Amino acid sequence: MTLDPVQLTADLIRCPSVTPVEGGALVLLERVLSAAGFACTRVDRNGTPNLFARWGAKGAKTFGFNGHTDVVPVGDAAAWTQEPFSGAVIEGVLWGRGATDMKSGVAAFVAAAVDFVTTTPPEGAIILTITGDEEGPGKDGALALLDWMKAEGEAMSVCLVGEPTCPETLGDMMKIGRRGSMTFYLEVEGVQGHSAYPHRAKNPLHALVELLGRMTAEPLDRGTEHFEPSTLQITTIDCGNPANNVIPAKARATVNIRFNDAHSSAKIEDWARGLIAEIEAETGTRVSLCTEVSGESFLTPPGDFVELVSRAVVSETGVVPVLSTSGGTSDARFVKDHCPVLEFGLVGKTMHQVDERIEVAQITRLKAIYARCLRDFFA
Amino acid sequence: MTLDPVQLTADLIRCPSVTPVEGGALVLLERVLSAAGFACTRVDRNGTPNLFARWGAKGAKTFGFNGHTDVVPVGDAAAWTQEPFSGAVIEGVLWGRGATDMKSGVAAFVAAAVDFVTTTPPEGAIILTITGDEEGPGKDGALALLDWMKAEGEAMSVCLVGEPTCPETLGDMMKIGRRGSMTFYLEVEGVQGHSAYPHRAKNPLHALVELLGRMTAEPLDRGTEHFEPSTLQITTIDCGNPANNVIPAKARATVNIRFNDAHSSAKIEDWARGLIAEIEAETGTRVSLCTEVSGESFLTPPGDFVELVSRAVVSETGVVPVLSTSGGTSDARFVKDHCPVLEFGLVGKTMHQVDERIEVAQITRLKAIYARCLRDFFA
Repeated sequence: MTLDPVQLTADLIRCPSVTPVEGGALVLLERVLSAAGFACTRVDRNGTPNLFARWGAKGAKTFGFNGHTDVVPVGDAAAWTQEPFSGAVIEGVLWGRGATDMKSGVAAFVAAAVDFVTTTPPEGAIILTITGDEEGPGKDGALALLDWMKAEGEAMSVCLVGEPTCPETLGDMMKIGRRGSMTFYLEVEGVQGHSAYPHRAKNPLHALVELLGRMTAEPLDRGTEHFEPSTLQITTIDCGNPANNVIPAKARATVNIRFNDAHSSAKIEDWARGLIAEIEAETGTRVSLCTEVSGESFLTPPGDFVELVSRAVVSETGVVPVLSTSGGTSDARFVKDHCPVLEFGLVGKTMHQVDERIEVAQITRLKAIYARCLRDFFA
Repeated sequence: MTLDPVQLTADLIRCPSVTPVEGGALVLLERVLSAAGFACTRVDRNGTPNLFARWGAKGAKTFGFNGHTDVVPVGDAAAWTQEPFSGAVIEGVLWGRGATDMKSGVAAFVAAAVDFVTTTPPEGAIILTITGDEEGPGKDGALALLDWMKAEGEAMSVCLVGEPTCPETLGDMMKIGRRGSMTFYLEVEGVQGHSAYPHRAKNPLHALVELLGRMTAEPLDRGTEHFEPSTLQITTIDCGNPANNVIPAKARATVNIRFNDAHSSAKIEDWARGLIAEIEAETGTRVSLCTEVSGESFLTPPGDFVELVSRAVVSETGVVPVLSTSGGTSDARFVKDHCPVLEFGLVGKTMHQVDERIEVAQITRLKAIYARCLRDFFA
């Protein structure tokens, strides 16, 4: 059996599966995978659709693939050159929302897995986890699906996430880890007053400026062996006081932090609470801190699994992938709690943009890379 | 002729002259003053009513009084114990909006002046300037009236402003100057981007925090002979960015400065522009600055006029007034460009509040103080 990943990508694009809508995408994949002998289970949670598919025996040596069929909204539909859910192929380019992020990646690993199990059935198992909430919080998507797997005794030996990872050329980058991400929501409460009599008030903005100044005074680190330096960015400060003769009572700020493996979110929160205690003592204001952790940093260090995927990329493309830990979050942040996880996929230049599109040749080649990973893993 | 300043204050309170409404207050005063031989002229500007009244010859040695009949809004009318425009006298206390700020002060100097010119006509002149925009910007009030006087060749040798100046007891404070006030409106323009990739963006909030940190790092001064230290207060910072994964393009802040006679607004603006240039060079952002100057600082140094008013206060109250330059702005900031100006009036505890009120005994005593100023000035 030979499944065309380009056709499958186009069929998936025609399913308007904007997060968390299923849109027919998982129904289509379940049909294709079931026909090839995969045992499929829909693990839907709170309106978020997820698909679990296993070929082979539970508990065997298992290669995992992970991806998502949900897509971000089309934005200004009138600005698209092609209808965003058309899946049109024009001069070797496939157009539509999800063309790079990441219906193409899902189609490539589904096609590779179907071909592999139907032509050269391995001794072992293949598990596909395909989720519907990667562009959302992910809690009802990958997190819920992986929790369900754990409860069911379903496990992967390794997992390759099919997210677009290459900045310029297919093969030029794979992700061996990701920085963690966390957000501080700060509110400073002072004492309101007249700006002519600041000694009778406690200006929360002065306390906030001092606190944020200390948070940003020094970089969190200079980077580690496999990671860029951590970053800390103030994303908003708001007070909303219209009167220039009034010292306001409250002010708020949001700070987003992307941190490498030199840190944990708990350690960074401790550091922030130390600074806050200093500021409270110095200014007499009260600072409340809410922390939201999107994911801890993680790393799958160079070793057998990294070697296996790298060799497959070099063999099919001639390009040696850079081992990177850059970028935002993906469902890999949940998978890493279950097994070694890597990410490799297409060139992601147009992801999340109007006129998202991909050369069909990339999809075909990505399928070949994934197929080689399976062959080498089970060899 | 003996004019009762308590009755006159009550009559004025019954005129609902919330800025810039005349409300009958200036009409009433014009009638009273005309009857006593004052030449009255209404100098209205852009809907703001003002009253100029002179007794005696133009160009003579002239004592000036200044005050305003406009009042701030009543706020929550239901929260008042007495109807805010009732002018009710209950157990020796006069209630209503303007009871302290400053229909009582106006009534006291009008009564003192009327008594004086009708019983012991002086060699010289008395000018009363009563304005309708002191609680507003003042441009169409005192500023316009003083400009008109200059054009008409009307001049005061000295001027006493009847604003409430005493913090605790009648007589305990007079104002011999005021700090200046100015406001900076700052806008920082950076480059928007993803908070995971700050090196591709320029975060305007980081530049703003650094700029405001430098502005607030050191006090502007330690005070001068007659002035408290200058103050600088951030009154708002606003960005309005809801997305914690986005570095915003722009951020705004407002900074209010009350400055003493060690500074001018021009000098402070130069200092701020120097800091802005540093920040722009260091961060690559663009910072725009709009400056609004409400008034320069000024001082009527201790001397004959201060002595005259102090002696009158001591004689009538037994209290030696502190010579202060504290507080916000008043119409004195305009008068000081025309002649030496001082401010002395009632205890201002309830000004601008619900249940504004004043002991009637204070009003009577204030009239006596003003009367003594007139006697001593023309002696």
